[in-house]
Amino acid sequence: MAQEIKTQWEGQMLFNADTLGGNFKIDAAEESGGQGKGVRPKALMLTSLAGCTGMDIVSLLKKMRAEVDDLDINVSGELTEKHPKIYNKVTLEYVFYGEDLKKDKIEKAIQLSAEKYCGVMEMFKQFAEITTVVSYKAKKSS
Amino acid sequence: MAQEIKTQWEGQMLFNADTLGGNFKIDAAEESGGQGKGVRPKALMLTSLAGCTGMDIVSLLKKMRAEVDDLDINVSGELTEKHPKIYNKVTLEYVFYGEDLKKDKIEKAIQLSAEKYCGVMEMFKQFAEITTVVSYKAKKSS
Repeated sequence: MAQEIKTQWEGQMLFNADTLGGNFKIDAAEESGGQGKGVRPKALMLTSLAGCTGMDIVSLLKKMRAEVDDLDINVSGELTEKHPKIYNKVTLEYVFYGEDLKKDKIEKAIQLSAEKYCGVMEMFKQFAEITTVVSYKAKKSS
Repeated sequence: MAQEIKTQWEGQMLFNADTLGGNFKIDAAEESGGQGKGVRPKALMLTSLAGCTGMDIVSLLKKMRAEVDDLDINVSGELTEKHPKIYNKVTLEYVFYGEDLKKDKIEKAIQLSAEKYCGVMEMFKQFAEITTVVSYKAKKSS
């Protein structure tokens, strides 16, 4: 199966991105010659990873009858110093919220996403060392 | 340098993504258990590639005094059949618009992005075979 996205230049460093399911603007920060009117392109790689594994986890936990109240996924990527700058070290943090979390099932879901289902994770494994951090909290404070 | 993005689950397959420079929603299509309220996470990899090389190209062409009227960048990725599904064949299409395009400088800019500057391209090279297609048109019909 093939998937396609389209982008159109809108002057300076600004691009419109028509991607699967919606569109948004991509831009560089002002200190990099852009106008800060959109998201940075490289960091979309990290967002892709969070979304991919996130959808695996919530659908696996639903099947396992181990649903959680809330879930945050944060991804940080360390960039190499020289061009072309790649994310060679990536930390993937899952924060699960709930009073009675089924930690064994949650950990199984994380493992299944990492080893079997998440295509973005599989792509990241080809260039990055990935560290996974899991934490559990009773309530989300917001 | 480290970069970080954050995502928060909003029920079903929907996530809010706070990424560098903005935020947007990520969701699965209805046929995959989502509500289609946001962009598909995996395709963000393709968008990241388009934005990264696009910014290289427009800034290089500006330095080379070889500016173009318009530029579209389209990326298609072929997914493997088995899980984890990765983009193993990627086609990167550049469409340059202008009456008097400096094709030699444009091709040099594409080469510099591919070989030297574009970190996302470098990451893609670790898992995908990349085909580049370049075309030139006098005017954008829109």
